[in-house]
Amino acid sequence: MRSDTSASQPAMTMFRRAAVVGVGLMGGSLGLALKRRGLAGEVVGVSRRQQTLDRAVELGAVDRGGRDLSLVGGADLVVLAAPVRIILGHLGLLAGHLSPGALVTDLGSTKREIVQAAQRHGLENFVGGHPMAGSHRSGVEAARAELYQRAVWAITPTENTPAAAVEKLTGLVKALGARPLVISPDQHDRLVALVSHLPHLASVALVNLAGKAAAEQPALKSLAATGFRDMTRLAGGQAELWRDVSLSNADYLCDCLDRLAAELAGLRELVRRGDGEALLAELERARQAREELRS
Amino acid sequence: MRSDTSASQPAMTMFRRAAVVGVGLMGGSLGLALKRRGLAGEVVGVSRRQQTLDRAVELGAVDRGGRDLSLVGGADLVVLAAPVRIILGHLGLLAGHLSPGALVTDLGSTKREIVQAAQRHGLENFVGGHPMAGSHRSGVEAARAELYQRAVWAITPTENTPAAAVEKLTGLVKALGARPLVISPDQHDRLVALVSHLPHLASVALVNLAGKAAAEQPALKSLAATGFRDMTRLAGGQAELWRDVSLSNADYLCDCLDRLAAELAGLRELVRRGDGEALLAELERARQAREELRS
Repeated sequence: MRSDTSASQPAMTMFRRAAVVGVGLMGGSLGLALKRRGLAGEVVGVSRRQQTLDRAVELGAVDRGGRDLSLVGGADLVVLAAPVRIILGHLGLLAGHLSPGALVTDLGSTKREIVQAAQRHGLENFVGGHPMAGSHRSGVEAARAELYQRAVWAITPTENTPAAAVEKLTGLVKALGARPLVISPDQHDRLVALVSHLPHLASVALVNLAGKAAAEQPALKSLAATGFRDMTRLAGGQAELWRDVSLSNADYLCDCLDRLAAELAGLRELVRRGDGEALLAELERARQAREELRS
Repeated sequence: MRSDTSASQPAMTMFRRAAVVGVGLMGGSLGLALKRRGLAGEVVGVSRRQQTLDRAVELGAVDRGGRDLSLVGGADLVVLAAPVRIILGHLGLLAGHLSPGALVTDLGSTKREIVQAAQRHGLENFVGGHPMAGSHRSGVEAARAELYQRAVWAITPTENTPAAAVEKLTGLVKALGARPLVISPDQHDRLVALVSHLPHLASVALVNLAGKAAAEQPALKSLAATGFRDMTRLAGGQAELWRDVSLSNADYLCDCLDRLAAELAGLRELVRRGDGEALLAELERARQAREELRS
C-alpha cells in the first residue's frame, strides 16, 4: 500500500501533525494507518512508558514520541487512545496544551462519561469516537494498519459539538477506510451494552463456572470444544479495560444483565417442563435473528 | 492421504462392513474417514432421504446406501449418527437386524438416555460415543474426512458393557486419529451441560435479546462487532438438534442455568455498586481460567 511518494502526498494529507495519546493496539494501529495512507504529515505518540514509545517508533506506528501530554501542542489532530478511565484523566489535562482549532477525538469504548468530561473541561472541538475493531491481542506489538478497514466507527456528537468538527472526523474515518456511524453518546452506550459489554460478562460468567468445575473434574477440559472456545474468547480480554468499560456503562449494563437473566429464565422453564415445541421456536428465532444481524 | 493401495489394506481394515445410520455432517465425515483410512472394507449408509444417500455416494462418504434400517444386517460395525431423539428411535428397531457380535455405537450429544435405551433393548455390544467435533454447517455436503482428527471422542460404557467392545471402539477412535476419553454417561452429560449445552442456550439468549432490540434500533446491527459474532455463532446451530439435546439433558442443563444465573447476578451486583476491585478480580479469574482451559 505504501507508495514511494507517501512522504509527500499533499493532496491526501488531512492533518499537519497528529498526536496519538496511548500507543497500544488501537493507538498504534491508528498511527500506522495515518502514516500509510498519508493522512498526517507527522504522527507523535504519547505514552507513560518509554519502552512502548521506542517500540512504536521502531514499528513505524509513530514518528516520534514522548511521555508528556504537552506533546499534543502543535498537533491539529489529537486522538485519545487509552482505556476509558485514563481518557477521562487525560481530558482534564489537555486544555492548556491544545493548539487552537485542533480536532480532538478518542477511541474509548463508552461515550457518555467521556463527552460529558470533554464538555466540562471546555474542549470545544472534541468529538467522541469509537471504532468497532479490536483483537484478542493487545499492545503496540499487535498494531496493524488494516485494523480499522471496513470497521464501523461510531461518532458521537452532542448538541454542542461544532458541525465542522463532526464533518472533519467523519472525513478522517472514511479516509481510514472505516464506516462512520453518527449516533448520540447515550444511544451508543445503550446499544454497546447489549452487543458488547453484556456478551463480555456472559463470557466471563461461563468461563468462571467452567473454571470452578474443571478444578474438580479434569475431564471437563477435554470436553470443551470449539463452541465453548467461541463463547469464552471474550473473557481473555484485558481485565482493567473491561472493568472500566463495565463501570462506565453500569446503568445500561445492569439493565441488559436483567434482560439476559429473564431470557435465560424463560429458556430454563421451557427445558424444565420439557416444552419441545416452544423451545424449538426460541431456537429457530435465534437462528433467524443471527442471520439478520449478520447480513 | 489416500494411497493407491487403499482399496486393499488388510493390515488396517478393522471392520468388514460398517453401517452408518444417518449420513449428515457427522455420519458422512465418519464414512469418509473410515474409507480414506481403510478401516472398513465397505461403508453402507442408511438415511430416510434417497437424495441424501445419492449425494453421500457421489461424495464418497458411503459405498452404497438405502432407506431401510435392515441394511445394518451383515455389518460388524454399526454407527448411529443422527440427532439424539432419532437415535433413541433407531435403538428400538435395531435388535432384529444386527449380525451377531456387531459393535454398535453412536455419535449422539447426550449419553444417559441413549445407553439406557440400548440396554433396555438388549443391545449387548453397544458402547455410547460422542466425538467433540462439529461445524456450523450441516448435512453431508459439509462432511470431511478430517473432522474427527485430534478431536476428543467420549466413550461412555456402563458397568454392563463388555470390555472387549469398549476396547474395540477405543481402537477405532484412535485409528480415526481422534483422542478417546472413557467416561461414564452420567459424568459426560453433567460436563457437556456446562461446556456445551449451557453456552448454546446463553448464545441463543444473547442473540434473541439483540434481535428484539435490533427491530427497534437499526444501528445495533452496525455496532455488533467480532465479539458479538463469536458469542452468537452457536445460536446458528440446527434448532431440532439442540432442542433434543436440551431436553435429553434437562436436569443437568437446568442446574447449569441456575449456576449461570447466580454467576451473572454476582457480576451485576459488582457493577451496580461500582466495586471495581472485586470486578477486576472476577475478570482476572476468567482470563486465567480461560488460559488453563485452553492449555
